[in-house]
Amino acid sequence: MDRSNHHRVEPYLSTHSLLPENQETPIQFIKTDDTDNKLFYRRNHFSYPPLSYSNYWLPINGIVSTPILLSMQDILHLPSKTIQVVLECSGDKRNLFEPKVFGVQWGKGAISQGYWKGVPLRTLLELSGIREGAKEIVVEGYDFGERTDINKVFSYARSLPIEKAIHPDTIIAYEYNNQPIPFKHGYPLRLIVPQWYAMASVKWIKQIRVIDFNFTGPFQTIDYVYYPNKENNKDAFPVTTINVNSTIQKPLDMEILNTGKHLIKGIAWTGNGFITKLEISVDGGSTWLNAKLEPTKDFSYGWQSWSYEWTISKKGEYMIVSKATDSYGRIQPTIPFWNKKGYGYNAIDKIKVKVE
Amino acid sequence: MDRSNHHRVEPYLSTHSLLPENQETPIQFIKTDDTDNKLFYRRNHFSYPPLSYSNYWLPINGIVSTPILLSMQDILHLPSKTIQVVLECSGDKRNLFEPKVFGVQWGKGAISQGYWKGVPLRTLLELSGIREGAKEIVVEGYDFGERTDINKVFSYARSLPIEKAIHPDTIIAYEYNNQPIPFKHGYPLRLIVPQWYAMASVKWIKQIRVIDFNFTGPFQTIDYVYYPNKENNKDAFPVTTINVNSTIQKPLDMEILNTGKHLIKGIAWTGNGFITKLEISVDGGSTWLNAKLEPTKDFSYGWQSWSYEWTISKKGEYMIVSKATDSYGRIQPTIPFWNKKGYGYNAIDKIKVKVE
Repeated sequence: MDRSNHHRVEPYLSTHSLLPENQETPIQFIKTDDTDNKLFYRRNHFSYPPLSYSNYWLPINGIVSTPILLSMQDILHLPSKTIQVVLECSGDKRNLFEPKVFGVQWGKGAISQGYWKGVPLRTLLELSGIREGAKEIVVEGYDFGERTDINKVFSYARSLPIEKAIHPDTIIAYEYNNQPIPFKHGYPLRLIVPQWYAMASVKWIKQIRVIDFNFTGPFQTIDYVYYPNKENNKDAFPVTTINVNSTIQKPLDMEILNTGKHLIKGIAWTGNGFITKLEISVDGGSTWLNAKLEPTKDFSYGWQSWSYEWTISKKGEYMIVSKATDSYGRIQPTIPFWNKKGYGYNAIDKIKVKVE
Repeated sequence: MDRSNHHRVEPYLSTHSLLPENQETPIQFIKTDDTDNKLFYRRNHFSYPPLSYSNYWLPINGIVSTPILLSMQDILHLPSKTIQVVLECSGDKRNLFEPKVFGVQWGKGAISQGYWKGVPLRTLLELSGIREGAKEIVVEGYDFGERTDINKVFSYARSLPIEKAIHPDTIIAYEYNNQPIPFKHGYPLRLIVPQWYAMASVKWIKQIRVIDFNFTGPFQTIDYVYYPNKENNKDAFPVTTINVNSTIQKPLDMEILNTGKHLIKGIAWTGNGFITKLEISVDGGSTWLNAKLEPTKDFSYGWQSWSYEWTISKKGEYMIVSKATDSYGRIQPTIPFWNKKGYGYNAIDKIKVKVE
């Protein structure tokens, strides 16, 4: 009998819904360096936009000196940059909140990392010129649909304050990992806003508008807002910068292990500065040890891989906990910041294993 | 601009582990009638077995009158039958137990339904003849590997008591949904034991052995045993018949809905008889109403689809609960039967939705 054994095993995205398509990455299988398109989580508010690109033009208008219309060729000829960026959905880890919150029950896999190439938004704004009184830049996508809460059709659109819009690393991207951006992730052009949760990184850009007031679209003022109280909207504030966070990729939660050596590994990330420390506890948080941070090539907006070699000879149950600290001194909290819509979960990551 | 919009959206299996491959079905997308191979959950103890089928023979030996060796041609020429069967992993819904139990954290998707065609095991046993004193039939698969708990290599093997083995619907299957069985589901031959949890339905059959004692393989006496106590193995008993059960497929847990009409739908199944009633509560179990059971064609070992049209005008949070009853009078319990290895979860199914 032939002993060939070539039965391919591979992970897929885990599906929450198809219309709109919301699928997350099984985070234990993600590569350290960049997320393959096949495992790049998909987060949509609407069905995919009905457009083709035979005649794509990007308008920049509003409070500008000269409204302009750029072709893809125009954009491809401008000076570009490539940056490594973590995109994390602000609803990532929503299913860990207690009490539970309504909405898509994202686990730990609404996060990706990869290389985005494009033109700084700042460069485009310099081409059109910003007029006095300009306050925000609104980026609108081609995706649209009815909001069931207000029974009205909207495009997906978000604004950035001028200072974030003109940050040199806020780019209008046209490539992901050296390829044209995959359609489901925003082809042909996607705004990439490093350090902010990914609701800011508008896909399928339709237009860029400079405004002299505060944008009040529903994805700015109803969704993507922290509401700390269950019963009212008091003390609400907008979702912006990514919180310091970490995820244990290995072992799996509730896994059964043998005694001996085990590599505990994972990722850590932050929207402010970089990760300076990752602490591991194998006793549920009573005592902590430093994990090894993988060397990082350059300054980037990517995540930080880490590992800890655990030698365990005593059988029993263990709670493994990871806690990241960033260069701004932010530390993952023990208790998450509960908010009604379930954004920005970043409590210390916990799993349980049994050694037998 | 061309308004074409052909971006395929489709669900995939959700991955728990790759070595061995354990993946479950996103149960909300499963078809009513049969499970497409692409969405058929995969549950393995080991990596896929190293075999090809250029020269496949099935031995039947042990306490028999004549040990025989059957070719695939021999088997294909015997009288066959096709039966619709639910295969449910006994660990299905394990992640719902409280307190949590160790092991693969299956959600609600370790279940499938389809049409299996094959020869009754009884027919094959009649060919070899069972000798006096025979007690059990052991079916061994080609898959094998080290059990980390006892540091020894085992094949996956299970026994059936004679009376279950000779039930006319216990078959040695060679087709699934009118095709040769997909490799990952047991090609070329799989034992199909209707009404029992799927650990009994051994894949990649290597041999069938008639024994005159009680089989004590680890997948019979260590795994697939209910251990009702956390601290000891008292009162343990084997996992066999599928419990009466139901799953709500739609709406999703924690989904946000509008006021108006909503179809609540799902499946119900049992290893004893058939489903006679499916009750729905939209107030967390205080009051119950009968769901509509879809007409079933014939008697089968398939699941029962059901639906309930819910009209809701009052905004608020609702807990939707489903509760199945079978023809043996078994009813899904409110509290699951907790057991250390997390088998046979069948408490009433509960989801929460918010109407706004």
